[in-house]
Amino acid sequence: MTRTVYVNGEYKPENEATVSIFDRGFLFADGVYEVTSVLGGKLLDFDAHAVRLQRSLDELEMRNPISKEDLLEVHRELVRANNIQEGLVYLQITRGAADRDFAYPGDDVEPTIVLFTQSKPGLANSPMAQKGMKVISIEDQRWGRRDIKTVQLLYPSMGKMAAKAAGADDAWMIEDGMVTEGTSNNAYIVKGDTIVTRHLSNEILHGITRAAVLRFAREAQMKVEERSFTLDEAKDADEAFITSASTFVMPVVDIDGKAIGTGKPGSVAARLREIYLEESLKSAI
Amino acid sequence: MTRTVYVNGEYKPENEATVSIFDRGFLFADGVYEVTSVLGGKLLDFDAHAVRLQRSLDELEMRNPISKEDLLEVHRELVRANNIQEGLVYLQITRGAADRDFAYPGDDVEPTIVLFTQSKPGLANSPMAQKGMKVISIEDQRWGRRDIKTVQLLYPSMGKMAAKAAGADDAWMIEDGMVTEGTSNNAYIVKGDTIVTRHLSNEILHGITRAAVLRFAREAQMKVEERSFTLDEAKDADEAFITSASTFVMPVVDIDGKAIGTGKPGSVAARLREIYLEESLKSAI
Repeated sequence: MTRTVYVNGEYKPENEATVSIFDRGFLFADGVYEVTSVLGGKLLDFDAHAVRLQRSLDELEMRNPISKEDLLEVHRELVRANNIQEGLVYLQITRGAADRDFAYPGDDVEPTIVLFTQSKPGLANSPMAQKGMKVISIEDQRWGRRDIKTVQLLYPSMGKMAAKAAGADDAWMIEDGMVTEGTSNNAYIVKGDTIVTRHLSNEILHGITRAAVLRFAREAQMKVEERSFTLDEAKDADEAFITSASTFVMPVVDIDGKAIGTGKPGSVAARLREIYLEESLKSAI
Repeated sequence: MTRTVYVNGEYKPENEATVSIFDRGFLFADGVYEVTSVLGGKLLDFDAHAVRLQRSLDELEMRNPISKEDLLEVHRELVRANNIQEGLVYLQITRGAADRDFAYPGDDVEPTIVLFTQSKPGLANSPMAQKGMKVISIEDQRWGRRDIKTVQLLYPSMGKMAAKAAGADDAWMIEDGMVTEGTSNNAYIVKGDTIVTRHLSNEILHGITRAAVLRFAREAQMKVEERSFTLDEAKDADEAFITSASTFVMPVVDIDGKAIGTGKPGSVAARLREIYLEESLKSAI
């Protein structure tokens, strides 16, 4: 089946969807993105993604070519056209196409906007949530502004391949002895009754799912500490898990071959996943 | 005038030159590039660029879709078709187009290859070589594998804009107190009779022009030290300069508002520029 995608104001079949070779997203990784989950045909946390998108654009002095209302409409139209019940909507905005120059082009250059869907049947009932993920640790070699959601994703991609090669599902990145985050998700550990996850800074992505999960955890009277933690602390934790828009809350049961806690998904991660899915579905649009 | 460009085996007008929105160069910055200078309608250092391209591809386990002979032929055809006397040939290879996934696609996915020219009349007789460049210093926030020439160029691009905003021409990047390099060039200082430039490592690009200039300098009995140097050492130097494929050797006369040496282009940089242009033209193909 051919997907319908959206490129610069037009809906078109995916095999006809192109950008110029001079697009700064292609030549300079001069672009930002968001991924919004779809459950029951509805968008999760759309508003928060729109807010973060605007922040990424602002940090890069990049013009936003679309209003929030129109963006929502495009999301909904793609979900409808591609009959997405469970899946994702991917959105990317770049600084547009201009002859190659490190300096940004003038304001006359129109930003590029691209959206497409990915159907992921079974997203909410992923077997991984029952089984738990294995992760490896790798050095964090990314650039310094990980709070801006840019398409400079080569290192996370290399990390994912290193994980696969090691028979694991993902990699946690380590900087100055501390865990920053997973390749495309935020990282958490649980020790006793406390959930620990790294504080917000330029070092990590300000996860939309992270914000929601921490809010739900606090509302449920769980204890939350936002601080850095070491790899050893993680290996010695009672539980570990990740959050992201496309995995929600996913237990981690093994780090570098060391079983975490009982080696089975923990009750805190399970409960947070349940709460997140329930609450997010309530507010899905 | 419409340029002729090369995309995946075809020569086409630039306004029809596109890549899929699913190209991993666009979505993940999963691509590498080279820029080769053209003087007198001939290519400078083509062999060295081809060797470095292969190294970048190897480091990323990316397949090379073109033989060196064919690559040379495409370079020459574009130079001819676009009547480039002085200018550049830009080459980019990405891991190709595949549905979005951090993991690399299978070997059945064909890499993307794109080449285009930029005409730069007066490249060899740039007024900047007479006047000298002003640079500012900025923190080096790039990823850890700067020896791989990837398209993750957003931070250098931001650095160029910061320089422009400060009334300067470029930025030198500082890490742990030491100068790494310019936004798209290697950095040098001269103190007494010694040329100092950072040693090769993952921290800097292994410049083709750098290698050639250091070879010519040694052949001319100049003293060369390959080691890190501090920003203060640079500000206190007798001369400073940069090298890159598109600027050759270019004097730096001001760093963060501090005049370097006499505040005029120095004799070492001038001599190296002359030798480089002379020798490179001799071996141009």
